[in-house]
Amino acid sequence: MRAVDVIIKKRQGQGLTEEEIRFLIQGYVGGSIPDYQMSSFAMAVFFKGMSFEETGFLTRAMIDSGEVIDLSGIDRPLVDKHSTGGVGDKVSLVLAPLAAACGCTVPMMSGRALGHTGGTLDKLESIPGYRTDLSVKRFTELLRGTGFAMTGQSEKIVPADRMMYALRDVTGTVESIPLITASIMSKKFAEGAESLVFDVKCGSGAFMKTLEEARGLAVSLVRTGNNLGRRIRAVISDMDQPLGFMVGNFLEVREVISVLRGGGPKDLLDLTVRLTAHMLVLGGLQSDMSAAEAECRRRLEDGSAWKKFVENVELQGGDVRAVEQEEAGPRAPLIEPVEATSSGYVQRIDAYQIGIAAGLLGASRETKEDEVLPDVGIELKKIQGNAVQVGEALCLIHGRDSERIARTRSYVQAAYSIGGSKAEPRGRVIEEIREDDLGKV
Amino acid sequence: MRAVDVIIKKRQGQGLTEEEIRFLIQGYVGGSIPDYQMSSFAMAVFFKGMSFEETGFLTRAMIDSGEVIDLSGIDRPLVDKHSTGGVGDKVSLVLAPLAAACGCTVPMMSGRALGHTGGTLDKLESIPGYRTDLSVKRFTELLRGTGFAMTGQSEKIVPADRMMYALRDVTGTVESIPLITASIMSKKFAEGAESLVFDVKCGSGAFMKTLEEARGLAVSLVRTGNNLGRRIRAVISDMDQPLGFMVGNFLEVREVISVLRGGGPKDLLDLTVRLTAHMLVLGGLQSDMSAAEAECRRRLEDGSAWKKFVENVELQGGDVRAVEQEEAGPRAPLIEPVEATSSGYVQRIDAYQIGIAAGLLGASRETKEDEVLPDVGIELKKIQGNAVQVGEALCLIHGRDSERIARTRSYVQAAYSIGGSKAEPRGRVIEEIREDDLGKV
Repeated sequence: MRAVDVIIKKRQGQGLTEEEIRFLIQGYVGGSIPDYQMSSFAMAVFFKGMSFEETGFLTRAMIDSGEVIDLSGIDRPLVDKHSTGGVGDKVSLVLAPLAAACGCTVPMMSGRALGHTGGTLDKLESIPGYRTDLSVKRFTELLRGTGFAMTGQSEKIVPADRMMYALRDVTGTVESIPLITASIMSKKFAEGAESLVFDVKCGSGAFMKTLEEARGLAVSLVRTGNNLGRRIRAVISDMDQPLGFMVGNFLEVREVISVLRGGGPKDLLDLTVRLTAHMLVLGGLQSDMSAAEAECRRRLEDGSAWKKFVENVELQGGDVRAVEQEEAGPRAPLIEPVEATSSGYVQRIDAYQIGIAAGLLGASRETKEDEVLPDVGIELKKIQGNAVQVGEALCLIHGRDSERIARTRSYVQAAYSIGGSKAEPRGRVIEEIREDDLGKV
Repeated sequence: MRAVDVIIKKRQGQGLTEEEIRFLIQGYVGGSIPDYQMSSFAMAVFFKGMSFEETGFLTRAMIDSGEVIDLSGIDRPLVDKHSTGGVGDKVSLVLAPLAAACGCTVPMMSGRALGHTGGTLDKLESIPGYRTDLSVKRFTELLRGTGFAMTGQSEKIVPADRMMYALRDVTGTVESIPLITASIMSKKFAEGAESLVFDVKCGSGAFMKTLEEARGLAVSLVRTGNNLGRRIRAVISDMDQPLGFMVGNFLEVREVISVLRGGGPKDLLDLTVRLTAHMLVLGGLQSDMSAAEAECRRRLEDGSAWKKFVENVELQGGDVRAVEQEEAGPRAPLIEPVEATSSGYVQRIDAYQIGIAAGLLGASRETKEDEVLPDVGIELKKIQGNAVQVGEALCLIHGRDSERIARTRSYVQAAYSIGGSKAEPRGRVIEEIREDDLGKV
């Protein structure tokens, strides 16, 4: 078999066999297929796509390129959630302890903030002392104990994805649904999940800007997973506006704490409960969504999810006082309001602009080498549908220095649209894709 | 400027600026843009194409990647011809001395046989002693003297093309009209030609199998050349059947000699005269095609083209006896007929099958390292339209050993279609594209 023939076959729009796809991935990781063949292959896939079956072959070949975490012997269902990333998306920090409190085991390996989006690892590390560099051994110990653990991705898992992602990033081949699908799914399965719930974000603050794109990815994830014999569901959720009120690492942890203690913003709470409920159903712990949602709300109200969270913070080296005591965590030295320049109702807050603003303050990074600050960010005071008077605070900027705060203001002002009529906030869940729905798509 | 942004721009189907294209080519040749970006760019061009203006920018950037042969001071018009390659295509060996005899200077740098197609250099080298590795200095001396010279391509000319072609060959990006156009045209202009005539072959023995493909390339060559301020014409000629009767290196030289001495097969003669006539018109030596064709036929009949050829053979180190005396050149030890297994008329001789057969005998090479033999090949005895009886020789196989001859027979048999009705051979010229015709295309 020659790589060039496989490339040409894909270029002509033909389907590839499992053997052909495995040949490419094994050869690439092994060094016999060079970058320049993989990049022209990726560009051919960009234009000609892959069937869900081919995407499954690709996912499997990528999983087999490295180590797979062995979680056999854990008798609770292994279910994980993956989000395509957004602004103020702190769902994982509530969902993981909540799902564990409801009986799931959640082997969560997460990524870091980049550009306008936040990263779960950076949020966790804003808790003083919290470690996200667990060994695989320690990770599995925690999973067996608490039922969840949160760590960075091991170098040994899916090396094909690390190589391919770095290559795609510089060859204009990132935006390909089958390649995105295999990248996400291979890691999640190699990390030990049996079933998966995807939160496919859609809107200005998301990778997928339109519903059509988001639906394309959601269907690809569910169908490809099904082709691999896995139970998969996808929720398409609105990321046109930031999720909750807080954007920035420890600011978001504060909001997580309020949800875990039975409060918090309704949009964040509802979305988290919905995603967790899907996990319980996929894991066979609940038979239908309404029972599953009721179970989730019970475990938030009775404090058992909160207890799991605190237990995890302690086990992963975090300072428990910082999460238990309102005033103990990191707090930025400067907190300045951004005031409304007109009266009316908040029509919309552009998530992308808020994400950029938080990034400028130091909540995210432009390049992989930048330092991320735990305490900075944006605290929204007015959200969609709220009435606002000239001079009232739209939000608070938490920052380290006046210069960066000043630069941030224009992005925040640009993010807010104020208008005459009262906009009614919609729910966050736009659409759900389950395996049994797919006939209709 | 970042290469990835230029790749994405092309991937989205947008036109590139001259600056962007030059950035890519200079960076690639200079080493700052790696193979993996050039290959994904080439695949994006495969799918999204390039305008004739962009193809002109690419051609110019490629020319500027290396040395350009300086033929200033030659007062005769510098005109060359390029063929896209075929089976039995020995036109260059007649055309170059003929055009020189008519007053052109023809700076011809040619390629080698590969796969089912022959190569001008291999044909020339089948003349004992003939050298095709002229220095640039010697090449220009001969051009100033005889008016033509024939050599291999210098390493220093258009290094971007050598690098890109090697990369395209292994990344599934060969079959792209703009990339083919820039590859061909950059070399021809860097070699010193001012105007160009293209022989775009079309049919089973050609790179372009259909008229539509051939027309696409022909129009691209003419329009791109016009964008560069050059006079360009293209002839689309039939390569569904071998050109002339001889396929194989010195066998073809014998046929060249018969044309230069005022004989030879009509299809080869007519096509050569037509292509040369276009050169004379482009070079301003003749005002119209009928006068130009008449001039060509005169120079064949009066022996002046033949004289130029013999002069060149001597100057390039070839054994003049081998071309002047019928029996003196290389001759294969075994000559075996392939006999007709049915009676009727020859409907068609598949050029591709004949090319493969000649290649198997050693007239071409499968890989760049294979040795090419001067004496082997196929001598057609019956061509399209000829009547044939069972047992009559369709052709003669000239070979070195019985085993290779035996393997060749099935290809030759497969090439011949014999049927009941007399097929009338068409002329070789299918269509001509001139700059003034382009409004109609």
